[in-house]
Amino acid sequence: MKKDISPAVINRLPRYYRYLGDLKEHDVVRISSRELSERMHVTASQIRQDLNNFGGFGQQGYGYNVATLQEEIGKILGLDRSYNLVIVGSGNLGQALANYTDFERRGFFVRALFDKDEKKVGKVVRGIKVLPIDELEKYLKENKVDIAALAIPRTDAPSVASVLTNNGVKAIWNFAHTDLHVPNGVFVQNVHLIEGLMQLSYKLTNDGADEE
Amino acid sequence: MKKDISPAVINRLPRYYRYLGDLKEHDVVRISSRELSERMHVTASQIRQDLNNFGGFGQQGYGYNVATLQEEIGKILGLDRSYNLVIVGSGNLGQALANYTDFERRGFFVRALFDKDEKKVGKVVRGIKVLPIDELEKYLKENKVDIAALAIPRTDAPSVASVLTNNGVKAIWNFAHTDLHVPNGVFVQNVHLIEGLMQLSYKLTNDGADEE
Repeated sequence: MKKDISPAVINRLPRYYRYLGDLKEHDVVRISSRELSERMHVTASQIRQDLNNFGGFGQQGYGYNVATLQEEIGKILGLDRSYNLVIVGSGNLGQALANYTDFERRGFFVRALFDKDEKKVGKVVRGIKVLPIDELEKYLKENKVDIAALAIPRTDAPSVASVLTNNGVKAIWNFAHTDLHVPNGVFVQNVHLIEGLMQLSYKLTNDGADEE
Repeated sequence: MKKDISPAVINRLPRYYRYLGDLKEHDVVRISSRELSERMHVTASQIRQDLNNFGGFGQQGYGYNVATLQEEIGKILGLDRSYNLVIVGSGNLGQALANYTDFERRGFFVRALFDKDEKKVGKVVRGIKVLPIDELEKYLKENKVDIAALAIPRTDAPSVASVLTNNGVKAIWNFAHTDLHVPNGVFVQNVHLIEGLMQLSYKLTNDGADEE
């Protein structure tokens, strides 16, 4: 596996994957980097550079085969296998995550929800049962969990993260508005919603200062 | 207003704001860039550089006044005023957004929800009524809306975005998994949830390749 790909390139791969998926749905078989660049509003040379990190995939003058390129990018992103997810927190956000059928289409399967609120325990969200948070550790010992989503208040997040990482979970999708300190080898993807709002308020306040 | 601040610096400001808020809550009055850097796991020189973009705020040897610095960063982020939000889409995600009381604490007030589903129209989420999507345009003409969150399927997003931007909305917080093409002067903040999962699957697949 490539060890030297810049995070910026990796961040762009899901977007390539999405555009190629859209093209495939519209029965487009081949596309040049110029055409793809026009659709994606990036330069053709950036597309070529990004994809060259992984060996190119294109044939000079023939463009890219859409299905092959999407599949290859999918492999790079690890989408050629499936992942078991648990969601901790079954409030609106946890339920919203459990209800995204798109995740499953890409191989991310929500296997269980957990909540500390007794009133929520036992509920069923799209066939997935809400279990008591006290059973999280036992569940992790008995089931392979690849990714855990934290849709809980920030004050609860560090202790839950410890239970997760102590029991082998290597990836945390953190919606709690706090930074988690995790052992080496554990990956955290933060979704700090209010920080997105702050980016917008910054732009509204500094009108036009930062247009990309 | 500063016109030359790099997007990377702007992206870090909400995190400074959050850490300073936590310190304030713990009654910390002053902090050196070294102490702040240890808490935030960034270098002290990055902190100084970032803040120097805005004139510094620190006094050599005395560190930063926590409350003043937070307030100043808040002003830069535009948090010294309030914003009217509408949420289009009142499913789980739309409701989750409407239920975040943290947003209000920072000046982001959800004023209305909209949905195309008649069964959802008329419901009330935390005192906020769900209105029919057909009334969105009329609502925008009669009320000042600063930011609109799109918690709707990707196929519906472009037409709703047009209604929004044609009626003066300058900021869109887009949870629909598609890129919106908006007029100049309109800001879009994308939250493509599945792309976060793909970042995690990439990291799990390329174990340790990209640790930051």
